[in-house]
Amino acid sequence: MNELLGKTEKAIQETATVKTAGGETAGRETGKRETAPEVSGFSLEEIGGLTGKEILIHGSVYKLRRMSGFAFVLLRTGRHVIQCVYSPEFSRFPMEELVEESCVRLRALVAPEERSRLGWELRLLELRVLSVPECPMPIVINQKKVNTSLENLLDFRMLTLRNEKQRAIFKIQEGICQGFCAFLQSQHFTEIHSPKLVEAGAEGGANIFSLDYFGRQAYLAQSPQFYKQMMVGVYERVYEVGPVFRAEKHDTSRHLNEYTGVDFEMGYIESFEEIMEMEERMLQAALTDLRTTCAGELELLKAVLPRFATESREEGPVAVPPQQNQLPMGRIPRIRFAEAKALVAQYYHRPMGEKEDLEPEEENLLCQYIRAHYGSAFVFVTHYPEAKRPFYAMDNPENPAETLSFDLLFRGLEITTGGQRVHGYREQLRKIERRGMHPEEFADYLLMHRHGMPPHGGLGLGLERFTARLLAYENVREASLFPRDIHRLTP
Amino acid sequence: MNELLGKTEKAIQETATVKTAGGETAGRETGKRETAPEVSGFSLEEIGGLTGKEILIHGSVYKLRRMSGFAFVLLRTGRHVIQCVYSPEFSRFPMEELVEESCVRLRALVAPEERSRLGWELRLLELRVLSVPECPMPIVINQKKVNTSLENLLDFRMLTLRNEKQRAIFKIQEGICQGFCAFLQSQHFTEIHSPKLVEAGAEGGANIFSLDYFGRQAYLAQSPQFYKQMMVGVYERVYEVGPVFRAEKHDTSRHLNEYTGVDFEMGYIESFEEIMEMEERMLQAALTDLRTTCAGELELLKAVLPRFATESREEGPVAVPPQQNQLPMGRIPRIRFAEAKALVAQYYHRPMGEKEDLEPEEENLLCQYIRAHYGSAFVFVTHYPEAKRPFYAMDNPENPAETLSFDLLFRGLEITTGGQRVHGYREQLRKIERRGMHPEEFADYLLMHRHGMPPHGGLGLGLERFTARLLAYENVREASLFPRDIHRLTP
Repeated sequence: MNELLGKTEKAIQETATVKTAGGETAGRETGKRETAPEVSGFSLEEIGGLTGKEILIHGSVYKLRRMSGFAFVLLRTGRHVIQCVYSPEFSRFPMEELVEESCVRLRALVAPEERSRLGWELRLLELRVLSVPECPMPIVINQKKVNTSLENLLDFRMLTLRNEKQRAIFKIQEGICQGFCAFLQSQHFTEIHSPKLVEAGAEGGANIFSLDYFGRQAYLAQSPQFYKQMMVGVYERVYEVGPVFRAEKHDTSRHLNEYTGVDFEMGYIESFEEIMEMEERMLQAALTDLRTTCAGELELLKAVLPRFATESREEGPVAVPPQQNQLPMGRIPRIRFAEAKALVAQYYHRPMGEKEDLEPEEENLLCQYIRAHYGSAFVFVTHYPEAKRPFYAMDNPENPAETLSFDLLFRGLEITTGGQRVHGYREQLRKIERRGMHPEEFADYLLMHRHGMPPHGGLGLGLERFTARLLAYENVREASLFPRDIHRLTP
Repeated sequence: MNELLGKTEKAIQETATVKTAGGETAGRETGKRETAPEVSGFSLEEIGGLTGKEILIHGSVYKLRRMSGFAFVLLRTGRHVIQCVYSPEFSRFPMEELVEESCVRLRALVAPEERSRLGWELRLLELRVLSVPECPMPIVINQKKVNTSLENLLDFRMLTLRNEKQRAIFKIQEGICQGFCAFLQSQHFTEIHSPKLVEAGAEGGANIFSLDYFGRQAYLAQSPQFYKQMMVGVYERVYEVGPVFRAEKHDTSRHLNEYTGVDFEMGYIESFEEIMEMEERMLQAALTDLRTTCAGELELLKAVLPRFATESREEGPVAVPPQQNQLPMGRIPRIRFAEAKALVAQYYHRPMGEKEDLEPEEENLLCQYIRAHYGSAFVFVTHYPEAKRPFYAMDNPENPAETLSFDLLFRGLEITTGGQRVHGYREQLRKIERRGMHPEEFADYLLMHRHGMPPHGGLGLGLERFTARLLAYENVREASLFPRDIHRLTP
């Protein structure tokens, strides 16, 4: 390193230290020259507002495009990719110092540039290299897309996530999740953290991971079901965002063995429809927030957000609503399970297979139908058969063969299961016995019912599935940060 | 039920339904009589503002105190316990309908009452019983405290949490956690959800739960360490709140086998001290928020919050700061590990046992000393010996026997471990090999280093430990919603 560079480094370091020590963004006079503000964390608009000024910024060299006599440098910061220019005319360091995926600290001039999308670019003045990669990337990550197989994309996840579009997916996922939480907070829900190591599964069946827990058998929670219900007795309304474990052997584009569950549960409901209304408002609130919090990422991914209410009628209601649908029409259409089955069979000339559940293809066709006839990307399917719902689901008093439950389908995929729960002790006891299950195995759970519970219900939403459908990825793995499936436990 | 009650029920239901369907709090004219606002979710101040008016409210009958000719009824709502009065003079239902732990919907008059702490009380007018408990509580939960053993408190957790003080603990825990998150968001950290099923543990050692994952061995994550580091390469700054699993066989008041970890990791640091500064600001921000968001709960639990900066000097700096402490004095005092060991041994005339770690008793004594001499409830212990820190900890270039790491002690207990990480590929490889570990087992992790990482570091904070010390509970289990320890896997 030459002497000039050494001095430069020191100067950058000095101002940077001032910044971080005080946590302030303004520099201070060193007595030698004007110090520049550290703009890492600034929005693009804020940086653009400094046009004509020098700034300090750090990031990774995302892409280097050598031209004759100068170079375009794309700098990847925490949230943006910023166009910079290297030129011997103003850059006071050798171009060789710029290496893709190097981490650098820079002094730069915010210069107006009409040909740049932002109307400005950064002229690189001084450079401090913080780290240099050992070798070039095994996979190209700095093109518009990562052009590779899903397998490769996931095998090199810690690298491919550095791609601008790849990381935008999870910034949007964060935005969705925080939109959900902010809405639930506004509705007086309390956030809880329930244990993932449990003595018994809530969903039953074989789809549960087991492990040795100091000499006895424990399981990984398939949902926070029992705990969120217990907490309804404490706070009336609760929610949790946390990992959910399902030992399902399905190897499909829609299954993960570990995913992020957004669960809520609410007491003092008069009808299970209140749960659907709450979800609808939650979705609407989160998507509205998202347009602001993740505007850049949504644009980058060309995401088409679903619209609600009259906005959703872009394509107009084409046909007459099916007369058999007795439920009042919300902003998200609602259809009973039995009617949904019949409608799909009839409209698409398709034999009804499985009687008590919707097959993936039926979910898909139903969504197509609803989209075409109601202009909605969502549809609630209600009143699922008793036989296919867990023992805590409340039966419909008017028809005990069905439950006061629902699924929410979004663009062809089930993203939510919810419903009202049994809150009466004797009723729950009877239902457990009727199913040939053993009440003593649910002693803790039943204690809650025994000592008074309000009518209540709730739902669970799969964050990865919702994100995948929102961004139109066919495979849910694309919206899972580090997916876990029957074949994949790494990275 | 008599006819009057039947009518009452219907009227309550009507207004209540109007409320929930529209999500609005204002009632509407039924044409029969003035409807009352549904105030569930209102603050106490908001309800008090309706003095002289009728309201609708729901909740549990927390406590019933029969007097001659009337009764005091404590109603437990989602967040409050509200004094109500039953009297045949104005209550249009038989007193027998009021049963403790019944869930009820009420029409009541907000009446001024000087003898009430709030200046008002609710006169019960009409009642609808939503559920009745099967039998009385097995444990008294409606006294000021739940007077029982810790064992019982936890065995009946789903019931004892209904106690006003018990549930306040976890409302405060929620407040702390959301304060942390809000602060980290303001500092441009991105929230992530990393997998809990992993192929290898980050912390190494035997303290890890293992399980069968479709025919191969998987582990439960001991921390999100590897993932948050990988994500620093993507977003620069990330955080996660999630379960952490430790198969430790310790049976102490400070250990849990599953707890809620608050983890953050930040890139582009110039020194590991920036991590401590960030934590200090995070703690201060969260505690400041808490005074507002959980004022009622803090008062109820008579919580004494630690103060920062000059405020923390309530007791005044008694002695001269130890001259051997070379680190600059922040608002939270900092002391090097070796000096902390020596200080405790000298000041408390105590033999130094274990050389490379602080024993619990030493942590306790050090906190006592710092409290007495600096008026601080917190102390950072820095530069832990290399031998006791994980393979990813960065060694101090000035003394490779110690690391650029720290613990944060709070009122006698370690609540955080953090430090700078190795970011260079060759350096990390050498450290793995030096420890006799196998680089090929960390291939995914090392890929990140290989392809460029900024200098970075971070920390993990135990949410239950922090809550316990904040509220002065000796046993961390009291601040764990459903604790998991070597003996306890239920409820």
